[in-house]
Parts: sequence; structure tokens; C-alpha cells
Amino acid sequence: PNIAFYEALGIDKGLNPLKKTVAYLYSLGIPVIIDAKRNDIGNTAAAHAKAIFGFYKSGAITINPYMGSDSMTPFLDYQDNGVFIIARTSNPGARDFQDLIFNNKPLYKHVIEKCLELDEHGNVGFVVGATCPEELKEARRIAPNSVFLIPGIGAQGGDVEKTIKAGVRKDSKGVIINSARGIIYASSGPDFAKAARIKAKELRDEINKHRNV
Amino acid sequence: PNIAFYEALGIDKGLNPLKKTVAYLYSLGIPVIIDAKRNDIGNTAAAHAKAIFGFYKSGAITINPYMGSDSMTPFLDYQDNGVFIIARTSNPGARDFQDLIFNNKPLYKHVIEKCLELDEHGNVGFVVGATCPEELKEARRIAPNSVFLIPGIGAQGGDVEKTIKAGVRKDSKGVIINSARGIIYASSGPDFAKAARIKAKELRDEINKHRNV
Repeated sequence: PNIAFYEALGIDKGLNPLKKTVAYLYSLGIPVIIDAKRNDIGNTAAAHAKAIFGFYKSGAITINPYMGSDSMTPFLDYQDNGVFIIARTSNPGARDFQDLIFNNKPLYKHVIEKCLELDEHGNVGFVVGATCPEELKEARRIAPNSVFLIPGIGAQGGDVEKTIKAGVRKDSKGVIINSARGIIYASSGPDFAKAARIKAKELRDEINKHRNV
Repeated sequence: PNIAFYEALGIDKGLNPLKKTVAYLYSLGIPVIIDAKRNDIGNTAAAHAKAIFGFYKSGAITINPYMGSDSMTPFLDYQDNGVFIIARTSNPGARDFQDLIFNNKPLYKHVIEKCLELDEHGNVGFVVGATCPEELKEARRIAPNSVFLIPGIGAQGGDVEKTIKAGVRKDSKGVIINSARGIIYASSGPDFAKAARIKAKELRDEINKHRNV
């Protein structure tokens, strides 16, 4: 879940239900990543980590790297939690800064390399968008063993085949494909749950087809 | 207020009191900036803006520019609200990415220039740290008319005189100096309110001395 949509609804209708939803998902054995894209200086980053891991009890989070190493390590210190760092995002504006070239290398690659250095506990992953398969392939080349969280399939128009071929590790694993609007808005009628299930299964099968497993 | 410290306390002890604190401050005529450093794709950025401006009713916010133009415009569309974009932050890790040189110009300057282009409503400001007076001076040179929100005075060790001289506009205005821990932790005894007031007045007087007004 992206916490912004809950926060926009306020506390009673948004954040309290989010906390309950996370607990319910874990009661079903489903892992949770709260998409929060947090980033702040050390002591504040620690407060963010406490909020997402300690209060909402999410197993994983997304964070933003702009403020550098000491803004990320307080999250990484939670050895049993996953931290997905946004590297090359799926939106049009990703080009504005993430693709700027420094020493023959775009910013998003500097981010990945620096974050791999910080990964003492093996809990670092990266967010790389499905809308940019060339950059996804490059990201995989420099982070061959990392788990990638990949948004942009579905409403944002990313192609499943290109994404899987560019994104998987050598073991055909290591990608978490996120489709939100493409599934939850599959129907606005009373059959919404069934329609969402069908869309989710279709996407799963398409992913597995291209993984060649 | 930085929302992370409230969120880390949960809803009843953190976020509900934050909402009440914002309302109380406005009842006293005191403007509020929620330090949230949000950043996400367009429709999610709109949800973040709704949360901070609509639910918590803050007049201003801090945001992170990493995801580019379309991740920032949903905030800027709130014409009556202020949006402070983090450009060159006050922490050690700021060097990791913000100072990388693209086309003879560090990333933080690319951020400032792009964001000035996006500023259709005159509600864009920048966060530039007091711990880096050279970068603050450069930021002022390329954004001569913008309001700067400047953290890093106090606990982080920024120098007031250097900060003011490097940061003010030609009219000796345009800087908002943030000192949090230096004031709120002035005393841990029963005199904490008085001690905080004294520290705040001292800082105000020192700021005004160097503004030469």
C-alpha cells in the first residue's frame, strides 16, 4: 500500500484502517511493503523507520536516496526489514535528475552503487520502473543479486515481457512486480473482487510465462 | 514540525496531537511548515498534498525533488500554500548525490533551476543547509528572489553569521532559519518553556544583528 492515499483520508478513515489492513495481511501470511518514499537526516530517518516498521508494523518500506548515506542507514539498521531504495522511477519526470550523467554514469547508477556499499545486512532492494526497460537492464547489470520492486505495469503502461526479460536475476527470480490500479480498478461494479482476482491471476501467469520457469 | 517524530509515536499520541498543534498555532497567528520531504508520482503526490494541506491544514510543506517535475507540480498547484524543495541539505550525506557535478554544475543547482522553471504561482522555496555556507551562497546567486528554509543552526553546528551573510536576499529578507533541538532542548527541567524562550530570542537577535537592518 502507498501510505499517501490513506493519509489523504485522514486518521479515522485512512491511517487507522491502514494499520488494521497491515495486521490483517500478515494474519493471512501475506508480506507487506509500505510505499512511503521517506528520506530525512539521521535522527529523523530513525523516526520514520520507527513509524513504518514499529507502529504500522510493515515488513518493508520504500525510501528516497536524495539526502545520501546517513539518511538511509537508520532504515537499513532494521536487519529483518526490507528497504527498497528508489533508483530509476517509472514517471516521466524521472528523466529530470535521475538520468543526469556524472562521470559517464547516470545519477540512478551512482545511487545503486552507493547503496550496495551500504548493504551490510542484505536487506537493500531497488525500485526501478517498468516503463524504462533499458534502464532496468542496466540496473540489473550493476546489481545482479538484488531484489527489484518494479512499478509501472498496468495503468502506467509498462510491458510485462520486456520488464521480466530485463529485470530478472540469472535464477529467474528477484523481481516484485507491482500493479495497483490495473488490478484494484478492474471493475467498479459489485463483481470488483472477482474481477481483481482474475486480473491478478492473468498478470501472475504472464509474468511466469516470461520467466521461463 | 517534522511529521516523522509524530508518526513514530503512532496515531493517538502522535498524529492526532500534530493536527491539534497545527490548528492551535494558526489560532495564535503563527504560520506552519510541516517538514515532510514527500515525493512520489503525480497522482500519489496529489494525495500527499491533500494530506498535508487538506487534512493537517499546514500552510507549507517540504518536498524532495528526486522524482522530477511531475512529482512536484501537484504540490505547486496549491497556489496559496508554500512548497520548500530540498536542494542542498545540511547533513553529511548531502555530498553523496547533491554535489555530483553534471555539466559543470552540481545536482542541487540543477534542482533549483528546474524548480524555478516550475514556479508559476510564486510559491516555491528551497531548503538549503546552514552547514554549507558556500553552497548556500551559490544557491542564493541562482535563486536571488526565493525564500530559503535553512536548517542546521544549533544542534547541527551551522554558524549564524555565515548563514545570514550567504543566505539573505538583497533586501536582507528571504530566509527562514530553523533551529529545533537548540531551542526545544534548552532545558530539561521545569523551566523548559522559559529556557526555550530565551534561546529563541537570543537566536532572533543574532539573526537580526547580521542582517544589518
